[in-house]
Amino acid sequence: MTDTTAGEQHCFLMRVRPERIDDYVRDHEHVWPEMQDALRRAGWGDYSLFLDRPTGLVVGVVTSDDFGAAQRRMDAEDINTRWQESMAGYFLPVDDRVAPGDIVELEQYFHLA
Amino acid sequence: MTDTTAGEQHCFLMRVRPERIDDYVRDHEHVWPEMQDALRRAGWGDYSLFLDRPTGLVVGVVTSDDFGAAQRRMDAEDINTRWQESMAGYFLPVDDRVAPGDIVELEQYFHLA
Repeated sequence: MTDTTAGEQHCFLMRVRPERIDDYVRDHEHVWPEMQDALRRAGWGDYSLFLDRPTGLVVGVVTSDDFGAAQRRMDAEDINTRWQESMAGYFLPVDDRVAPGDIVELEQYFHLA
Repeated sequence: MTDTTAGEQHCFLMRVRPERIDDYVRDHEHVWPEMQDALRRAGWGDYSLFLDRPTGLVVGVVTSDDFGAAQRRMDAEDINTRWQESMAGYFLPVDDRVAPGDIVELEQYFHLA
């Protein structure tokens, strides 16, 4: 069992189609319990998602001792494959660097405990 | 003394001039101790800043039981006035909703403890 409270904060961007935001947010009021369990198992600790409605920009914030490994563990979960399929229609690319639904990882440059 | 570990996570956007990012990041390796003390006094807990270098987009994440009050407490600190004056030349507006250096607050729609 991974200790999901350990590690550094990581931050990433995604983008949701502005015209689908109401449905997308409603789906996140009822994230499948099996999906939540998989995230915890994979080491996604204190995981929050934030939204800028006018632009559809999504910010994810997660605590993990190894965010690359935490992402690979989720990629290996069947429940995640099904969740991502159910979400695919909601996403736009953040910008021309990435495909729809792909994340853009940010760089931490300041922290005050 | 405010308990800076209490409260909910809040998230906001700012934008830095891409051509000034190296100087801006270097300044944040040496944030004035008096500025760090003021942030703690004002209730800015577990405060992180993240950067997307290609676009200059900045994401701030802070834990606070009342982020509006925490912002007003910083607005009243002389050291913050001097810090913001020293930062003013680095900022662009996030987009046409706000002025340079102003934050755009995001809405939390998911949290997994």
